Amino acid sequence: MGRIICAGLGPGDPDLISVKADRLIRLASHVAHFRKAGRPGQARRIAAGLLRPDVVELAMEYPITTELPFDSPGYNALLAGFYDYWADQLADLGRTTDVVVLCEGDPFLYGSFMHLHSRLQGRAEVEVVPGIPGMVGCWSATGTPITWGDDVLSVLMGTLPEDDLARHAAAADALVVMKTGRNLPKIRRALDRAGRLDQAWLVERGTMPDQRVAPLATVDESDCPYFAIVLVHGHGRRPGGPQ
Amino acid sequence: MGRIICAGLGPGDPDLISVKADRLIRLASHVAHFRKAGRPGQARRIAAGLLRPDVVELAMEYPITTELPFDSPGYNALLAGFYDYWADQLADLGRTTDVVVLCEGDPFLYGSFMHLHSRLQGRAEVEVVPGIPGMVGCWSATGTPITWGDDVLSVLMGTLPEDDLARHAAAADALVVMKTGRNLPKIRRALDRAGRLDQAWLVERGTMPDQRVAPLATVDESDCPYFAIVLVHGHGRRPGGPQ
Repeated sequence: MGRIICAGLGPGDPDLISVKADRLIRLASHVAHFRKAGRPGQARRIAAGLLRPDVVELAMEYPITTELPFDSPGYNALLAGFYDYWADQLADLGRTTDVVVLCEGDPFLYGSFMHLHSRLQGRAEVEVVPGIPGMVGCWSATGTPITWGDDVLSVLMGTLPEDDLARHAAAADALVVMKTGRNLPKIRRALDRAGRLDQAWLVERGTMPDQRVAPLATVDESDCPYFAIVLVHGHGRRPGGPQ
Repeated sequence: MGRIICAGLGPGDPDLISVKADRLIRLASHVAHFRKAGRPGQARRIAAGLLRPDVVELAMEYPITTELPFDSPGYNALLAGFYDYWADQLADLGRTTDVVVLCEGDPFLYGSFMHLHSRLQGRAEVEVVPGIPGMVGCWSATGTPITWGDDVLSVLMGTLPEDDLARHAAAADALVVMKTGRNLPKIRRALDRAGRLDQAWLVERGTMPDQRVAPLATVDESDCPYFAIVLVHGHGRRPGGPQ
């Protein structure tokens, strides 16, 4: 009886993978990872240097959905079928071998593996190894603490309506906005309405060699990938006053 | 010229330390860590198995502040003096050797090291190695994803006024409440007002051998340490509907 082990890979630097996940990946006979069709996949890239030469790899390619709005029944059915299929594959494989599923960041924080995790309950032994979330790598890249004292930190998705983004941005002290990309103009308007735009940063590939940290107000709207993260740092209580 | 390196230790299981922090700690000739007076300290405990036998240890003991309200000038001055003192010590030591500062969780997320980090700017070369935040270890311990789809996640401190806690708890989909302890009755009242109490969990020592996960409503109010974390999971969009 094998196990399905989801290994959180952290924000991108392979040196920031946990000792446990690193060991599991190095020993794995079978690994699986998500990727867009025709792309190498970020999870696969992070773990590249750790894989056994004889490892069996399963690339779980997301169905192409660019023509379908993400809240349409068609999109929902296509993705549900995709997760159903791979849950079946992993449950089958898991009868005879361990499979390590490579997942960026922390698997339980907005991760794709969760959709397999829920489908595998009662069908396979599943273990999830936590990782450093991508947002932690991004605030680390800014070299500045994200929260102090009693700061309220809110994590928002850029896919939310502008009014919701503006309301939450005004209510919190520190902010993380994920899923940016084409949502950038909307996110920028929402932060401006909340009076937070001039304190916001855009971070791409935090902890990776080509990381980029830029003031959000200065970023070209056409130059923002989906995985880039917007950050607003908190400024809460600190003994001795602001330093 | 040495460096001050803050190593994030993650949530508690030494196997969840990053490969990078693990290596730095194993090689360190000098380590420093925060602790309460007379206690071994959680950071020191997590790293215990990695330290060189000849390591020089600096225990940075928080001043005793139980008689002072945390928002009083006296408390503020005492803590500021404590951080000033240790920033001086580390800046001095850093002239001739590397010092690894052991810090639980992620150093930039409500961490004590931030108060040294700001004081050491321009006086020493400082590097911060991110870690898995304690809250990630806690939601990992529940075996359930914390956020799905477009869920809004808010991180709150239990030290906030009840009205603020209730307002943020009602506005967010998923919640983390840190600094619980004596604030538990207030947190419970706030979550009840927000209609979230029956979905809330209390997690202690997530990822450690003696971890505890209990429905918040059933926890004895006298049995909640300061570092225990309250969680409410989100229930956002998932392809194929709730599983």
